[in-house]
Amino acid sequence: MNETIELLLRHRSIRKFTSEPISDEVLRTLVQCGQAAATSSNVQAVTVIHVTDTDKRESLAALAGGQPYVADAGAFVVYCADLRRPKNACESQGGDFSAGMMEHFLIASVDVALAAQNTVVAAESLGMGICYIGGLRNNPADVSALLQLPEQVYPVFGLCLGYPDQDPEVKPRLPVDAVLMKNVYSEAQQRELVAQYDEQVRTYYQTRTGGNKDSSWSEEMRALVGKESRPHMKGFLADQGFATK
Amino acid sequence: MNETIELLLRHRSIRKFTSEPISDEVLRTLVQCGQAAATSSNVQAVTVIHVTDTDKRESLAALAGGQPYVADAGAFVVYCADLRRPKNACESQGGDFSAGMMEHFLIASVDVALAAQNTVVAAESLGMGICYIGGLRNNPADVSALLQLPEQVYPVFGLCLGYPDQDPEVKPRLPVDAVLMKNVYSEAQQRELVAQYDEQVRTYYQTRTGGNKDSSWSEEMRALVGKESRPHMKGFLADQGFATK
Repeated sequence: MNETIELLLRHRSIRKFTSEPISDEVLRTLVQCGQAAATSSNVQAVTVIHVTDTDKRESLAALAGGQPYVADAGAFVVYCADLRRPKNACESQGGDFSAGMMEHFLIASVDVALAAQNTVVAAESLGMGICYIGGLRNNPADVSALLQLPEQVYPVFGLCLGYPDQDPEVKPRLPVDAVLMKNVYSEAQQRELVAQYDEQVRTYYQTRTGGNKDSSWSEEMRALVGKESRPHMKGFLADQGFATK
Repeated sequence: MNETIELLLRHRSIRKFTSEPISDEVLRTLVQCGQAAATSSNVQAVTVIHVTDTDKRESLAALAGGQPYVADAGAFVVYCADLRRPKNACESQGGDFSAGMMEHFLIASVDVALAAQNTVVAAESLGMGICYIGGLRNNPADVSALLQLPEQVYPVFGLCLGYPDQDPEVKPRLPVDAVLMKNVYSEAQQRELVAQYDEQVRTYYQTRTGGNKDSSWSEEMRALVGKESRPHMKGFLADQGFATK
């Protein structure tokens, strides 16, 4: 164990921030930490839109399903998967961009997540808190219009950054033996561990909500994957030039 | 700046490792650091397969396109996007799993990348080096068969971990102003910065290879996105139950 590992294990999402802003200089350092992450074949398919316009932040908070911290956090940035820049570079060398490849979509989306997570770790090392905003994918076309994203660019998620004005508990995760396997995938080793975790999650919610929330992880998963989720995404991505072949 | 930020900015991929192995105990801690990362709606759609079987590691090194460090590194793990566990949990509560959603594919793939990057940061904080292995997607069906991955699980990438037996330079990244934008996407601000970066990359390769490699970033991008890339991925993912709707 060391300080970095302790920092990683202490992570929890923050949804209430002090009014202290994040300076442009600090934000640049955080983004540079993101750029330092690994990137597939050096494609660097990541663009970060720093949203400073108050009206835009209010609009994004609403588009994300009513998440006020999108407007209130010290800074709000949108992480975009960007194949536009490599496309332009390819064409500047006389190449023809190969549009719509699933593999390129995956590379770009993974690049974004690796970079964002480095930014998160850097921010938390400076005492900030963060919250990822997947809710931008509720209305991805409206978000893209607001940020003037061209084809070959799409918003993967937003990220709130700022100084915490709350101190929530760390949320328990699945037992490590339910997710770490040796040589082959094993469903058998998961069953009992998931059952244990279900009860741990139930206790966590009951404690956190003073008894108002009573749900296991498996019940949460029924709500999450037991119905269609953002069924517009496939069509939206195709419209932006992603993942059609 | 602090130690964590300096660590992040020092990252470079390592492709030559000492023979020192990574103990199971250390690997568990690294995976737990990955679990501590944010996860969409607590889905935790990540399974890590620790490949200890020598024959399997040799096979994977070959399937990845002949990358010997897959067999040689202190440890080799495969990061899998796993909707099987939430599917089973959903069904245990009487739900019907909604198969093939693009949104679920994206959530799971992003979850994997966030977790893996935390593991990488933790490993580097302990003096290890790492290399992501996207090459597993050259032959994803063979990789899946080797690891006995069921439907709703797919290998996103591999990860070599170990103690470095080389000391490569940090690779230069795009200027931060080419990737960090304010309020709207801007192609105009990128052009000159990419041209500058092209020359920086050319110098970097010439220095690193003693003049044998002469390529700009834009030339690399022509080679990368100017042709189809892993065109089997869409069909493979559909076969595994991902991203069909």
